[in-house]
Amino acid sequence: MTIQMYDLCGRDPDRRFSPYCWRTRMALAHKGLEVDAIPWRFIEKDKLAFAGSTTVPVIVDGANTVSDSWKIALYLDTQYSDRPALLSDAAGTGAILFLRQWTERVLHLALLRIVLLDAYNCLDEENQAYFRPSREKRFGTTLEKFVEDREGHLVKFKELLAPVRAVVEAQPYLGGERPSYADYIVFGVFQWARSVSPVTLLASDDPLYAWRGRLLGLYGGLAAKSVGYEV
Amino acid sequence: MTIQMYDLCGRDPDRRFSPYCWRTRMALAHKGLEVDAIPWRFIEKDKLAFAGSTTVPVIVDGANTVSDSWKIALYLDTQYSDRPALLSDAAGTGAILFLRQWTERVLHLALLRIVLLDAYNCLDEENQAYFRPSREKRFGTTLEKFVEDREGHLVKFKELLAPVRAVVEAQPYLGGERPSYADYIVFGVFQWARSVSPVTLLASDDPLYAWRGRLLGLYGGLAAKSVGYEV
Repeated sequence: MTIQMYDLCGRDPDRRFSPYCWRTRMALAHKGLEVDAIPWRFIEKDKLAFAGSTTVPVIVDGANTVSDSWKIALYLDTQYSDRPALLSDAAGTGAILFLRQWTERVLHLALLRIVLLDAYNCLDEENQAYFRPSREKRFGTTLEKFVEDREGHLVKFKELLAPVRAVVEAQPYLGGERPSYADYIVFGVFQWARSVSPVTLLASDDPLYAWRGRLLGLYGGLAAKSVGYEV
Repeated sequence: MTIQMYDLCGRDPDRRFSPYCWRTRMALAHKGLEVDAIPWRFIEKDKLAFAGSTTVPVIVDGANTVSDSWKIALYLDTQYSDRPALLSDAAGTGAILFLRQWTERVLHLALLRIVLLDAYNCLDEENQAYFRPSREKRFGTTLEKFVEDREGHLVKFKELLAPVRAVVEAQPYLGGERPSYADYIVFGVFQWARSVSPVTLLASDDPLYAWRGRLLGLYGGLAAKSVGYEV
């Protein structure tokens, strides 16, 4: 049975730009599960009320509704334990949880300083009217000011990635020879950027460039074929 | 058979302050292995020549000599696979490797801005004469200047720990219900600080304070009983 997934989109319903939703899209493909990724926009909170959530991803798998990308990963590994694992044992899953916290608290914020205005520009008017005041309140400044020193933030973003770079210099994926949910967590950041912004985040000789290329090509080029910019 | 381990010490041979060596001490205890932790000082490179190493930890386990704390962890899990695991499967070990890279590239540097001069002051004269020029060359400034804005760096250090804090707020250890090598990697940073400096790194209401307390108490208080300052 096809799983339904509510997936953040822009003005163009095929532009899917949420880093959290990309984790789940990759996770479902990793499990070999069919998905119907339903376009959803920020202001459509009512459409998620059935799940008790105000954010995506939300999945509906038969009688089961799960929201929050981390809970979805846990659910998929439990429900489909006969398929390739996303997470690990307790020790490994704890370390992946650390990677998740680091990505959300450090890397997401660093990328926002680069692509926040681009993300805004991908939205339709109604969603822009929701997005601008909510983000300007959160960051205490205008979207334009927030991304002002884009070049400086690009340098910082690349520096912050040093620990990820060191791992994928030594092995093909964070997961080792095969991708794990850890890869999808970090890859979600790059898919988010790629879907809203023409910015060049990585030089072609960066080990992360090759790693991202491997992720883009997985599952028949699922991510590479999605609406976005060339990287 | 008792494993021999070369372990960095200060003027006082019982002051063991290497974060890398603490990883290995905790790892050996985790495995229930006996260890003879031989005091070693920076300038005693010749004593490690047999292992082809210039840094500690180095362990000698019967016919096997292993240097580098990460390689030692891998060795212990392979050699003593019937004892509690330190690492995880490929996906989990990859994420622990990321945590290691982050700890060494981000957290170690942040702590150095706080305790570098304290560490220097724990050394005997001969090792001080080696340590000062080598570190001043590395950091391009005097030890004193390097730790000048200690209060500012303390704030930064605590901020950088946010992703670790978030995990140990949700579960007792990075490893889940039980400690894993991921815990020892981060704990090594705190043992390093505790052994050379009276500085207060964590407020008592910080979830990391309770987590560190759990680590200090493990294996009969191995870490708590070591020579250092009250935390």
